[in-house]
Amino acid sequence: METFSDGVFAIAATLLVLEIGVEGKNDVGAQLTHIWPSYLAYATSFLTIGIIWMNHHHTVSLLARVDRTMLFVNHLLLLTIAFLPFPTKLVADYLNAPGERPAAIAYASTLVLMAAIHQVWWQYARRGRRLVADHVDDAALRGVDLAYAPGVPMYGAVLLIAFYSPLASVLLTFAIAAFYLPSAALFERGGEPA
Amino acid sequence: METFSDGVFAIAATLLVLEIGVEGKNDVGAQLTHIWPSYLAYATSFLTIGIIWMNHHHTVSLLARVDRTMLFVNHLLLLTIAFLPFPTKLVADYLNAPGERPAAIAYASTLVLMAAIHQVWWQYARRGRRLVADHVDDAALRGVDLAYAPGVPMYGAVLLIAFYSPLASVLLTFAIAAFYLPSAALFERGGEPA
Amino acid sequence: METFSDGVFAIAATLLVLEIGVEGKNDVGAQLTHIWPSYLAYATSFLTIGIIWMNHHHTVSLLARVDRTMLFVNHLLLLTIAFLPFPTKLVADYLNAPGERPAAIAYASTLVLMAAIHQVWWQYARRGRRLVADHVDDAALRGVDLAYAPGVPMYGAVLLIAFYSPLASVLLTFAIAAFYLPSAALFERGGEPA
Amino acid sequence: METFSDGVFAIAATLLVLEIGVEGKNDVGAQLTHIWPSYLAYATSFLTIGIIWMNHHHTVSLLARVDRTMLFVNHLLLLTIAFLPFPTKLVADYLNAPGERPAAIAYASTLVLMAAIHQVWWQYARRGRRLVADHVDDAALRGVDLAYAPGVPMYGAVLLIAFYSPLASVLLTFAIAAFYLPSAALFERGGEPA
Repeated sequence: METFSDGVFAIAATLLVLEIGVEGKNDVGAQLTHIWPSYLAYATSFLTIGIIWMNHHHTVSLLARVDRTMLFVNHLLLLTIAFLPFPTKLVADYLNAPGERPAAIAYASTLVLMAAIHQVWWQYARRGRRLVADHVDDAALRGVDLAYAPGVPMYGAVLLIAFYSPLASVLLTFAIAAFYLPSAALFERGGEPA
Repeated sequence: METFSDGVFAIAATLLVLEIGVEGKNDVGAQLTHIWPSYLAYATSFLTIGIIWMNHHHTVSLLARVDRTMLFVNHLLLLTIAFLPFPTKLVADYLNAPGERPAAIAYASTLVLMAAIHQVWWQYARRGRRLVADHVDDAALRGVDLAYAPGVPMYGAVLLIAFYSPLASVLLTFAIAAFYLPSAALFERGGEPA
Repeated sequence: METFSDGVFAIAATLLVLEIGVEGKNDVGAQLTHIWPSYLAYATSFLTIGIIWMNHHHTVSLLARVDRTMLFVNHLLLLTIAFLPFPTKLVADYLNAPGERPAAIAYASTLVLMAAIHQVWWQYARRGRRLVADHVDDAALRGVDLAYAPGVPMYGAVLLIAFYSPLASVLLTFAIAAFYLPSAALFERGGEPA
Repeated sequence: METFSDGVFAIAATLLVLEIGVEGKNDVGAQLTHIWPSYLAYATSFLTIGIIWMNHHHTVSLLARVDRTMLFVNHLLLLTIAFLPFPTKLVADYLNAPGERPAAIAYASTLVLMAAIHQVWWQYARRGRRLVADHVDDAALRGVDLAYAPGVPMYGAVLLIAFYSPLASVLLTFAIAAFYLPSAALFERGGEPA
């Protein structure tokens, strides 16, 4: 499960760059500035995939085994992650232009779905310690609970904001990724034996 | 064989997203609804690759060794899997539009070919326990037989249906993937020692 | 070296599918037949990458260590393999149409270059058993010599033929891949202890 | 960290080929010569990723552990590497044509950023031997210092030159990659116990 998942994470993150492009021969320099939404969308999705990958990786290290249901839910999670380059491209193409609202809504909806499936994925493994390794103590499980809990409400808020201000919604997604990634050190302290 | 195969599975699945696109600047929201065949094709192929990967992975774990013929057949199998993004794109672009029949036929034909090569792949390894590990009992082999048997007839039926109703044929492919993936738990019980 | 190389092999093979496409809404069925050069180019390059990967993989298993020069030559080899999707696309787009000659020449030239670098790669490792593991006997090395020797002359012939008949040159490349891959069993018998 | 990073390196390098293309049906042979900036850009970026990958790989082998901050900085480094196909495409499309200056500046800026993050990445791990394995002696650390030191000034010079001569700036980047890669043998002697 780990190799395949790592592959999908890495490929989805690297495919994001294909959304960035400049067209025609007119004033390349001005275009490179003009397409700032492409850079924002790229960095936001790349960092977001980074967070999910780290959480995924850390959580898998707490598991002793994997069953078919877990593989199925994991595959659904990968389906949403591999889908991310599409709404990222929408944001890149339409942010700050007509069509930015549906683009930002599609982007946020994908993130809500991803966070929800990731939560189901973790709860399935954790409930009654179904797949958890024996040596993992309850504090480690609560550490992961705390790390997964904000996902759905946070991206739910991003989705609500997308209806009013697409730009604010994307910036908030970027901020979540940029601040959550390093501060996840907290999670590490709670989740791993010193 | 495993690393290379895992790579091709993961990359083919992740490349599927490149078929999804929105064109022009007109009413992005309406377009996002209008391209539902793209989502259906994406999910169908992603889940189908998931099933084949799981079966492939499970089966390889029963083998003790691999010879050049097996590598060759495995490479043919990977050739059809890596090809899947193309007929997936056909379905995405033409379903519910003129050209949907050849698109659905091409999609189903690829799946029939894939299932047939996967069957040959398994039979080659299994015949006379040619490549099977000693500790694997006959029940495990019969479990895999049962899992592989429906492939060709099932996708054969999908192909027949594609001539009459392209949409029904794609929906059936989706249903096969969506229901087979979790229910493959049965296969697990038959196929692995408790 | 192995992980990175395996990745490039798998990704280059899987990216090949992106060259296949159908344009416009006119008679999809007829177009699917009309683009047979795309299928031929796809299968030829996919099988060719398969052969190179198998030889590469087998040879690496005979090595005890890797130095920076080897890594450098290996990187040049990967550069030509990762380049292959481009001439493959040329063949797919121009075979059986104006422009087929330069397309086939570009394709064959890439294969000659690839075979030449692969030969240098092997000779560097083999000369004076520089990187070869101690337990590997000389027969195994001669087995690899025999497997690598035909590369450059064979693709050199393909290149010559491309000037006269682009189609024949691509078909010969396909035949080399299709027949060499299974018959490489010979190589296996010479190259690995029974 | 290693698997995910290796994946991103390999995928980014292999995606570079997608920037190379020929358009229309006119005189394919002449076009294949005319697009030499595409080949130059491809080779330059492929070799550059090769160097960074080798240095990254070697350095990781000196570390005993990885913390969340290191993972975060590593993810930023991967973000710039996965971004490289975009400025590579700019150079391929605009070198030797109007728009070559901003293209070369964007390319060089990406490389400066990449080198700077790679330096931060290494300094974070090295400072007070924070993440370094116990068995690694100080000479090995100084060897890595020497290998990382020229990165920012070298690509800074490339950036300055891009303002005056885009072509010279790309050729210098190519030369850095082509000569640095094999000569990195020096680094190996300093950096690894014999």
